[in-house]
Amino acid sequence: MTHYPKSIRILIKNLSKLPGIGEKTAERLAMHLVNGSMQEVKQLAGSILEMKETIKLCQSCFGFSDDDLCMICSNPSRDKSLLCVVEQPADMASIEKSGAYNGIYFILGGVLSPMDGIGPDKIRINQLMDRLRRGGIKEIVLATGTGVEGESTAAFIAESLASVPVKVTRIASGVPIGGDLKYVDQVTLKKAMERRHGI
Amino acid sequence: MTHYPKSIRILIKNLSKLPGIGEKTAERLAMHLVNGSMQEVKQLAGSILEMKETIKLCQSCFGFSDDDLCMICSNPSRDKSLLCVVEQPADMASIEKSGAYNGIYFILGGVLSPMDGIGPDKIRINQLMDRLRRGGIKEIVLATGTGVEGESTAAFIAESLASVPVKVTRIASGVPIGGDLKYVDQVTLKKAMERRHGI
Repeated sequence: MTHYPKSIRILIKNLSKLPGIGEKTAERLAMHLVNGSMQEVKQLAGSILEMKETIKLCQSCFGFSDDDLCMICSNPSRDKSLLCVVEQPADMASIEKSGAYNGIYFILGGVLSPMDGIGPDKIRINQLMDRLRRGGIKEIVLATGTGVEGESTAAFIAESLASVPVKVTRIASGVPIGGDLKYVDQVTLKKAMERRHGI
Repeated sequence: MTHYPKSIRILIKNLSKLPGIGEKTAERLAMHLVNGSMQEVKQLAGSILEMKETIKLCQSCFGFSDDDLCMICSNPSRDKSLLCVVEQPADMASIEKSGAYNGIYFILGGVLSPMDGIGPDKIRINQLMDRLRRGGIKEIVLATGTGVEGESTAAFIAESLASVPVKVTRIASGVPIGGDLKYVDQVTLKKAMERRHGI
């Protein structure tokens, strides 16, 4: 890479810090930007800075937002009595894409992981309790991951909510739709078998 | 994507204009930038703009450079009598990585392609002739691609140089090193067979 001018070398170095972008890809992206129009390149750099300057956390769900309340929390057509608890904004994005949910969200910001020193005070458990105390929530759907940490986080929240008059549910786990049974792992199959239901 | 705040949506849109970056990847990159430190993000955006503002074409080889002459053309230890003609800066980068070349370069900026209306006036054929007229070049290595257009561009240049007292060579083509013969295409094998040499 030493044969590139310094300004390109610095750009490649910064691009290759992005997740999933190796040096080869960073080089290709840099070459695209070198050859690109000044307008296009300014647009890209500008939108990175603009995003970073305007983005904040929604005061209600802790998702990303341009305003104090995010588009979902401020949308009058969303069911404000149904609260879905997820680990990260990306999980919220996935559920939104499915189009199957019309309630609001709460973003924990992680999962409990005692091994990594992440206890209830490191994720937004207290803020979740505050949110519920403000009232209006009838059902809380725990949509943390289905791995060990996601499950134990869901169990911890369910336990913490034992005395709160709110219905607590958990997203279903089982064989993915369109999945060929022979490619499904045994833990998932065991769970799917245990949770079998009448049709 | 409609559930993201506007500033993130714009960023995703701009990122997905980059080559090889689809909407999913753009989303992942945007999430990384949203979560990243302000310093890291400013560094990235800054290096994009900085590169775009400082980069220019080397007056001698037409490669990218921060100064009037690029690092290769201004390097006193490079052999200034050996000129390698390539299509694009990326080709130069590949040859540099091989470490097998110590001459200087000339970047054509493309290949002849009559079907696309790209004649000798659309690439730097005249500038190449000017470069040779300035003297000092003893050998010119034609390192355009080995496809139809690269070959015909090399042939065109060789022909144009018939009256110029300079040695004209062409990079060798054949079976790639480490290549299994059964995976090599027939045209390459035919060429490799024709060009066989004593060992």
